[in-house]
Amino acid sequence: MSRFWSDHVAGLSPYVAGEQPKIAKLVKLNTNENPYGPSPKALEAIREAVGDRLRLYPDNDSTALRAAIAEHHGVKPDQVFVGNGSDEILAHVFNALFRRQGRMLLMPDISYSFYKTYCRLYDVPAELVPLDDDFGIRPEDYAAARPAPIAGVIVANPNAPTGRALSLEQIDAIAAAHPDAPVVIDEAYVDFGAQSAIALLGRRDNLVAIHTFSKSRSLAGLRVGFAIGSEEIIGGLNRVKDSFNSYPLDSLAHAGAAAAIRDVEYFDRTRRLVMATRADLTQRLEILGFKVLPSQANFVFASHPDHDARELALALRAEGVLVRHFSQPRIDQFLRITVGTPEECELLCETLVKIQTKTH
Amino acid sequence: MSRFWSDHVAGLSPYVAGEQPKIAKLVKLNTNENPYGPSPKALEAIREAVGDRLRLYPDNDSTALRAAIAEHHGVKPDQVFVGNGSDEILAHVFNALFRRQGRMLLMPDISYSFYKTYCRLYDVPAELVPLDDDFGIRPEDYAAARPAPIAGVIVANPNAPTGRALSLEQIDAIAAAHPDAPVVIDEAYVDFGAQSAIALLGRRDNLVAIHTFSKSRSLAGLRVGFAIGSEEIIGGLNRVKDSFNSYPLDSLAHAGAAAAIRDVEYFDRTRRLVMATRADLTQRLEILGFKVLPSQANFVFASHPDHDARELALALRAEGVLVRHFSQPRIDQFLRITVGTPEECELLCETLVKIQTKTH
Repeated sequence: MSRFWSDHVAGLSPYVAGEQPKIAKLVKLNTNENPYGPSPKALEAIREAVGDRLRLYPDNDSTALRAAIAEHHGVKPDQVFVGNGSDEILAHVFNALFRRQGRMLLMPDISYSFYKTYCRLYDVPAELVPLDDDFGIRPEDYAAARPAPIAGVIVANPNAPTGRALSLEQIDAIAAAHPDAPVVIDEAYVDFGAQSAIALLGRRDNLVAIHTFSKSRSLAGLRVGFAIGSEEIIGGLNRVKDSFNSYPLDSLAHAGAAAAIRDVEYFDRTRRLVMATRADLTQRLEILGFKVLPSQANFVFASHPDHDARELALALRAEGVLVRHFSQPRIDQFLRITVGTPEECELLCETLVKIQTKTH
Repeated sequence: MSRFWSDHVAGLSPYVAGEQPKIAKLVKLNTNENPYGPSPKALEAIREAVGDRLRLYPDNDSTALRAAIAEHHGVKPDQVFVGNGSDEILAHVFNALFRRQGRMLLMPDISYSFYKTYCRLYDVPAELVPLDDDFGIRPEDYAAARPAPIAGVIVANPNAPTGRALSLEQIDAIAAAHPDAPVVIDEAYVDFGAQSAIALLGRRDNLVAIHTFSKSRSLAGLRVGFAIGSEEIIGGLNRVKDSFNSYPLDSLAHAGAAAAIRDVEYFDRTRRLVMATRADLTQRLEILGFKVLPSQANFVFASHPDHDARELALALRAEGVLVRHFSQPRIDQFLRITVGTPEECELLCETLVKIQTKTH
C-alpha cells in the first residue's frame, strides 16, 4: 500500500497472464496462441501501412475495420465495437453494462479468471454459478428466477479453461430469461467448433458477442478484438471508450485486422487444421490415460488419475514444454494444453510418455 | 439512455477528438501531429517485426521498451510505465492515484479537456484553478494551503491549448507544497522547448511525468506513451493496468517505440526544425495582427482583434486548412494552430491574408 494510491488500489486482484518465455526453443502450449501464423494478406496489409503516415493519429472511429467486420458477420457497422484485444472490450463491458446499483452479475464459478478481476476493478458484485460435475454450464441455472433484477450475465462459449460449449438453443434460453439485462457471450474460441450468438441478435437485443483476433485469426501480437450487439448496447460501450482513450487501435492494427477478416479462405483452412489436430491430440492423451473434456476450443483440458497436475506441468516445463496449470479449487488436477502443430503435439505426447516412464 | 447501460453511463462526457479528415489534400494543422514523419530506424524496426511472430502475445511487461526508455531518461526500468498512448496512461492515473474519499484534485480551468472527462469517468471531484489573465498557470495558486488534504494535482507542461510552460522551479514548488499527494505533469509537448520534471524525481517522490510518442517522436499512429515516477507510484499504475488489460501495447508498437527513443539524432533534428518553424509562424501571425501566446509546444494559440475565431476556423476549413477552435469560455476567441512544415505554415498565412482581404 502507498500513500499515493487511490483508496481501492490495494484491494485489486490483477490478472496473471500465462508465461511469455524470453527463451526461444520452448514448445509453447500455454497461452492458446494459433500455431499457423497470421494470414499472409494481413501481414502484407500491415507492411503497406508502415510509413510516414504513422505520424498521423489513427481513425478514432475505426470506420474501415468496423465495416469489414460488419460485412463478414452480416450486421450494421454501428453494431460493431472494436477494442485493444477482447480484454479491453471486456473491461469496458463491465464498466458500461454491469455496474447497476443493487444488482448481481451471474457468471460461472470456473471461467476466464479476468472476469473476477473486473468485478474487483469496477465493484460489480457477482453470483458465481457452479459448473456441473462434468464441468458444463447448465443454462437452467442462469435462467432460473432471482429475487431481484440482475445486472447481467457473462459466460464464455466455449468456456475457458474447460473448452466445453453451449448450443445456440442454450444461449437463447439464457437471453430469453433476462430480456432487460445484458447477456454477454465471450466467444474468444468460438471459431474452433461452437456457434456464435450473433445468429440470435435479430430476436435478442440484450445479447452481446465478443470476439478476438488473437486466436482463430492468429494475431495475438496485434491486439484487436470486437463486440457485436444492438446499436443501443454498442452506444453505451462507445460512451465509455470515448471517456477512456479515443484511439485504442493503432493504424497497423486497423490495416492488419481488416485484411485478416476478409481472408476467409485462410481462416477456414487454418482453423480446420487446428480442429483436426485437436481430435488427434485428444485421442493420444486418452491412450496415455488422461481424461479429456470434450473441447470446441483450440485447447484441451485434461487430467490424469495417476499424476498430480501441478507436478506434471513442472515436469513438462523442465523438458521444455509449457502448458497451463491453475491452482484453483475443482480444476487443480487439470492441465490446459493449447493445440499446437501436429509436431508440437507429438512432442508433448512423447515427453509425457518419458515423464510417466520415469515416475513409474 | 438505455435499460442495458450501467447507472453512470448517461452522465459521462466523452472526449471529442479533433477531426481526422477522410479527404486527402487538406492542410491538417488541427491535432498537433508532427510534420516530419517517424524516425526511419523506427519504421525499419516495425517492418522487421511484421511476420509470423504476430501469432504470439506481446511481452506484457514491455521489458525491452521500458529498458530503452529508462536508459534514455536515466531512471530505473521499474520507474517506467508504458501504455496505449498517453491518454490510456492518464486514465489509469486518475483511477490509480486520484480516487480518494473526500479529497479534491487540483487542475487548471483551461487545459487538456480529457481531464474533465476522466473526472466524470472515475467520480473524481476537481477544484478548477483559473489561469491568470495571460493564460499562465500560477504555481502559488496550487501551492496555497487547502482546508483538507488534496487528492493530487495535474497540470500539462507546456499547457494545452495555450502552449505556455512552467519552469522547473515552479513545478518543484507545487510538488513541495503537497509531499503526500501525487503531482502529475502531463509533458506531452515538453520536448519542444520546456524542461521535464524527470529531473526533479530524485528529490520529489510524489512527481509523475507523462510523455507520449505521438508528438516529438511522430508516432501518433502507433499509440505509445509512458510515465516516469517513483517505483511506488508506478506500482499502483501497474496494479490498475493488470486489472484492465494485460497487453495494451502490441508487438509492432514495442519495436517501433524502442527504436524511436534510441534515435536521438533524428529526434533532436526534427524537434529543432519544429521550434524554428514555430518562431517564424509566430512572427508571421503577429504581422497579420494576431496576438500569439508564447509557446513551448508544437502549436501556437492565437487570437485576432478583428476576426471572430470560430468564423476564421470555418473560413480556413472552406479553403482546405484545418485548425482547432474550442467553444469554451475565455478561449473561444483563439485558434490552436499546429506547427506544420514551413510550406504548410506559409499556406496557412497566405490563406489568412486571402480571408482578411475578403472580409474587409
